[in-house]
Amino acid sequence: MSPNRDRVMIFDTTLRDGEQSPGCSMTQPEKLRIAKALAELGVDVIEAGFPAASRGDWESVNAVAREVQGPIICGLARCNRDDIKLAADAVRPASNRRVHVFLATSAIHREYKLNMARDEIIRMAVEGVKAARELVEDVEFSPEDASRTELEFLAQVVEAVIDAGATTVNIPDTVGYTVPDEFAELFRYLRKNVRGIDKVRLSVHCHDDLGMAVANSLTAVVAGARQIECTINGIGERAGNCSLEEVVMALKTREAFFNLETRIKTNKLYPTSRMLANIVAMPIPRNKAVVGENAFAHESGIHQHGMLKHHSTYEIMRPQDVGLTRSSLVLGKHSGRHALKERIKELGFVVDDLEFARVFEEFKALADKKKELFDGDIEALVLQAENSAAGPWSLKNLRTVAESDQVAQATVQLQHSDGRLVEQRASGDGPVDAAFTAIEQATGIDVTLQKFELRSVSVGEDAQGEALVYVEYNKRSYRGSSVSTNIVESAAEAFLEVINRIELAQASLAKSQDERTGAARTAQAAV
Amino acid sequence: MSPNRDRVMIFDTTLRDGEQSPGCSMTQPEKLRIAKALAELGVDVIEAGFPAASRGDWESVNAVAREVQGPIICGLARCNRDDIKLAADAVRPASNRRVHVFLATSAIHREYKLNMARDEIIRMAVEGVKAARELVEDVEFSPEDASRTELEFLAQVVEAVIDAGATTVNIPDTVGYTVPDEFAELFRYLRKNVRGIDKVRLSVHCHDDLGMAVANSLTAVVAGARQIECTINGIGERAGNCSLEEVVMALKTREAFFNLETRIKTNKLYPTSRMLANIVAMPIPRNKAVVGENAFAHESGIHQHGMLKHHSTYEIMRPQDVGLTRSSLVLGKHSGRHALKERIKELGFVVDDLEFARVFEEFKALADKKKELFDGDIEALVLQAENSAAGPWSLKNLRTVAESDQVAQATVQLQHSDGRLVEQRASGDGPVDAAFTAIEQATGIDVTLQKFELRSVSVGEDAQGEALVYVEYNKRSYRGSSVSTNIVESAAEAFLEVINRIELAQASLAKSQDERTGAARTAQAAV
Repeated sequence: MSPNRDRVMIFDTTLRDGEQSPGCSMTQPEKLRIAKALAELGVDVIEAGFPAASRGDWESVNAVAREVQGPIICGLARCNRDDIKLAADAVRPASNRRVHVFLATSAIHREYKLNMARDEIIRMAVEGVKAARELVEDVEFSPEDASRTELEFLAQVVEAVIDAGATTVNIPDTVGYTVPDEFAELFRYLRKNVRGIDKVRLSVHCHDDLGMAVANSLTAVVAGARQIECTINGIGERAGNCSLEEVVMALKTREAFFNLETRIKTNKLYPTSRMLANIVAMPIPRNKAVVGENAFAHESGIHQHGMLKHHSTYEIMRPQDVGLTRSSLVLGKHSGRHALKERIKELGFVVDDLEFARVFEEFKALADKKKELFDGDIEALVLQAENSAAGPWSLKNLRTVAESDQVAQATVQLQHSDGRLVEQRASGDGPVDAAFTAIEQATGIDVTLQKFELRSVSVGEDAQGEALVYVEYNKRSYRGSSVSTNIVESAAEAFLEVINRIELAQASLAKSQDERTGAARTAQAAV
Repeated sequence: MSPNRDRVMIFDTTLRDGEQSPGCSMTQPEKLRIAKALAELGVDVIEAGFPAASRGDWESVNAVAREVQGPIICGLARCNRDDIKLAADAVRPASNRRVHVFLATSAIHREYKLNMARDEIIRMAVEGVKAARELVEDVEFSPEDASRTELEFLAQVVEAVIDAGATTVNIPDTVGYTVPDEFAELFRYLRKNVRGIDKVRLSVHCHDDLGMAVANSLTAVVAGARQIECTINGIGERAGNCSLEEVVMALKTREAFFNLETRIKTNKLYPTSRMLANIVAMPIPRNKAVVGENAFAHESGIHQHGMLKHHSTYEIMRPQDVGLTRSSLVLGKHSGRHALKERIKELGFVVDDLEFARVFEEFKALADKKKELFDGDIEALVLQAENSAAGPWSLKNLRTVAESDQVAQATVQLQHSDGRLVEQRASGDGPVDAAFTAIEQATGIDVTLQKFELRSVSVGEDAQGEALVYVEYNKRSYRGSSVSTNIVESAAEAFLEVINRIELAQASLAKSQDERTGAARTAQAAV
């Protein structure tokens, strides 16, 4: 395989390393939605999960391999035959498939985690790559914690796995430890000292613990890497991974410097970022580069003055380059289907007819309550319509009465899809607490609230509030979200979505009790 | 001045460039609180503001210069005598004071913003630096947009301002455009080609538009810079500035690589970060490096397994190094003064006796409502007690009644410090909307809600909710925050804080009508 020297492949690991962020685990339908958005965005590789981690992970990877066209679909595996077989099976339906095998190589991991000597590491890595090559053509190998591995040993490992048939060699900075000058030196060392290195594609995988994931990735590219592993919004273990939108826009904005291109359709970056933020309920920080709401805001007078004279005085990217096409045009109750459809398209979202019908219905209901609908409102409607888990419970009515220094009262009426209509009254510290308690009592599901967040999605006292609820139940985390102009109702709806997720999870758990048990979730991955 | 070769000065510009972030403007008491925290943290220079921007800015810089001991206090000035005089006057009370003069040098700024030729730029820069040196010993010069300036012209400018008496020369990447390799080359070029460069301290000032502010700053340091300009939490124009906590922890964690030190007390990083986030109402993203809540979380099984064997397998910093000393110890209604005082100290906060008395009172009230008080609760109480603007309005009672598909009702009873007791009833879309409207009507101040956010600060259904409210009134932005276990009441309290700020601002505006008018806020700075 001769890598294309003027193109950098974008390897997205939002569904694998990103999903390992605390609070970011996703359901299979959510993973599919993201995988489809990633294919639209133009990524070259989707790492869809770690099939050996659990039955659910295997099934998600398999579903992505079956349903998502275009990118290479990749599954991660530890360096053993069982993991590799599960990964190869999971990605088999994809037209382009890859197995990604990893094994730690640093002294600290050899000694404390693996308890293995150097030659054992090399033997195991070679066996793993060979085993993978028996099952798929396209095999990537990662020496975990490469940036803390002795250079000459790292070179030995890399040379051995290339001989064994690896087609891509990825160099991870697993703990986010390296700095650009040092990391570039590592890549130059490998390119100089490893026989056969020009036969494979070199890849880079950075973490942001010291805030340098993007710069380290780009430095590796200057030093010869031609694949960048990254995630949407930079989600991932601890401080996260290299952020896809930042690294892609750096390559594009500084094209004359890097002289390299990617296949990313950059005008899909903003909607993809918003979709992921909505699904994992992790709001985009205001000052996030490229996709944050301040990224293109120019507060200071001097900046504004310069901007009016020439936008490039203070702007190195244009908002439309990343798909941020906010318009001051406002929709309202007299806006029709066509106007809404056009605006949704302008905002970068792809909705099918069924989804559009649902969004339009919500739009009309909202326009009755709220004079002016801004882009933020439309965005919230689209994301919510795509996101909402269906039943079994739905909120028929919520009544709250509250007064300072008194116990608040909430009465909920819930409808179950099996026909039950339950009314329950509870008290609490404020209307939201009382509503949550009433829902718990009505459904018989008693959870521990881990986190609650609410934010307005547009301006005005009648702005919609997007509520996010995170709970723990039976040692597992669940989250729900909802949007409404009534924020107490929005909170209750989000809480009910959590309850629905728990009921659905319990039902599916009961169903799969008889099936084979996958490896426990403790087998999660680290690269 | 011979720079200390093994120490990097930390120049904090949270109060100047940071304050220019949309939504981050601060009052004088807020600026003083932050400046004191920065002095405790051990920064070398505090850029306290841009005195020519407005009378209020001048007064804030002057207050910091009067009241904050330790760091050099710096004021920013455009390259003209009026600005420079105002800046020098403002910082005069400080024992160590600096004036920071800037002028754009790039072709695009010369042509579109300044409409000046190269020789005019050099003449103006030299005049500015000389004018500043007549007033203060310590003068910093910044060629704005240096990273997009022709190298040989940049060298000419730098040489000229050194001859004119600049003691620090700062190289800003104003638009966040550069990449490490290129930026290092720029510093090497200057050090090779500028006569007298070794007489001054070289400084670096980076923005994060392409996600590389930290890496670019560190690369500059490797290439000879000995001052880093940065902000707490990386706040600042657009995507923000280099993040102080990240760049400091990178220097510390990779000390063997950089062989440099700072004077920062790193165990104050987390409390300082939390204080700023609370004051500017800008929550820290979960996956923010160093201070984000996920920064030290280890979700995946493999990571957890490794961590149990040896923490350094996946952890390059320890939480206690940055002052994150979360404990699972829970306080409650039986906890006394001593226990609370100890916990506040462990969390890194400094409170005086008066503040402690207020916090303890709030603590007791909260412990009556809530069984278990976690570190997040204590933190919120401390930050809130420090933060709350006093009167004139206070909330005596709030009663809300709401039901699905019906208009919600809220009745507020407000007490004004002039003795008035006002009761007002209003309807709205949900209890929060109704409460906001009732408060507007009761106080006669009609605002436009720009943004509303709410988040729980600890776990459990009885967790406290921290509400943030941002409004626009007479084309100015205001924000308020509040914490309560009843989130509707928390929202109303935050909204009332906004109303109080508006009343206070109007009163102080009326008072200063007769005083001289400072330059308009349009004279804000850009470096």
